[in-house]
Amino acid sequence: MNPLENPWQTNSTREIYNNPWIRVREDQVIRPDGRPGIYGVVEFKNWAIGIVPVSGDGDTYLVGQYRYTLKDYSWEIPEGGGAIGIAPLESAQRELLEETGIQAGHWTYLGEVHTSNSVTDEIGFLFLAQQLRLGESTPEETERLEVKRMPLAEAVQHALSGEISDSLSVIGLLRAWHFLHRDAGVEMVMRNYPE
Amino acid sequence: MNPLENPWQTNSTREIYNNPWIRVREDQVIRPDGRPGIYGVVEFKNWAIGIVPVSGDGDTYLVGQYRYTLKDYSWEIPEGGGAIGIAPLESAQRELLEETGIQAGHWTYLGEVHTSNSVTDEIGFLFLAQQLRLGESTPEETERLEVKRMPLAEAVQHALSGEISDSLSVIGLLRAWHFLHRDAGVEMVMRNYPE
Repeated sequence: MNPLENPWQTNSTREIYNNPWIRVREDQVIRPDGRPGIYGVVEFKNWAIGIVPVSGDGDTYLVGQYRYTLKDYSWEIPEGGGAIGIAPLESAQRELLEETGIQAGHWTYLGEVHTSNSVTDEIGFLFLAQQLRLGESTPEETERLEVKRMPLAEAVQHALSGEISDSLSVIGLLRAWHFLHRDAGVEMVMRNYPE
Repeated sequence: MNPLENPWQTNSTREIYNNPWIRVREDQVIRPDGRPGIYGVVEFKNWAIGIVPVSGDGDTYLVGQYRYTLKDYSWEIPEGGGAIGIAPLESAQRELLEETGIQAGHWTYLGEVHTSNSVTDEIGFLFLAQQLRLGESTPEETERLEVKRMPLAEAVQHALSGEISDSLSVIGLLRAWHFLHRDAGVEMVMRNYPE
């Protein structure tokens, strides 16, 4: 897969908005067709970190929370923001512990995701967590979470049907499933873990 | 999966930014822990529509383009914005034709995605397109696209490894794979198509 040159030209940029989580900017650009235009970009100040914990007997743990943006309740894998510059694995270990109380003895990197690349620069990193030790969760103060244990196969069905719709959750569950069931018709070759 | 009540309270809202594709607003809120705070929300003016075309001999078509937000080249399924209110299937048929020149005789709904629900309200709809008739592509003026044909199994491997990282593409390819290979260990039950 060959990268090509950037066909966009940026002539100027201005900051529109800045809060602890995002920065919005508007660029004056020359588009690929040679015409002037604008591009509004939403920059994320954290990486998105998602974890699929899988127990020895094949269960996973989902986290339920109300999503303010969608005005709807959402069942998801344990996930949250990881500071850019801190190793994603370290953030994954902290996030899993905070949201579920789980610590894991074995971690597998499940690759990268760009959640919404027409407008945002958000990057997600996914992990499979195994050899689980259960403990007490300590969610962040803005979070009100439920935790539910279910067979991974059942969660995968929800991810396929769209009943689980959060992109990081769908991708994490399906990548974990294929990693754990290499007979499912496709071979999984992981890329290098980002340092 | 039981919905719970909204634990957030919105006290006021103001518009921060508005362009043809997104609207950014900042809400003054009472958080689930009872404390005051802000929430910056990026509203999308279009749905994200993604299509996985699969030929009779099991090939799919990927579209390559430079993503301005990520400053990187990205191989993806045919996808684009569909006006909210227009049936997602209609937008999918238009988008597939524009980007690849393909028309399809058989369409299957592959469910919903929320791409980045901590900050945006973006909703994606995915489709499998079969019984393909090839023609001429007519991309939008801002797009400079390459189209590449490859076995679906190969594209699925890229989606698993993270080499394909666009969330709509990863989910579309994996859902299409499971829909077409129901022996892969999980049964796929699609939800109702949204009207």
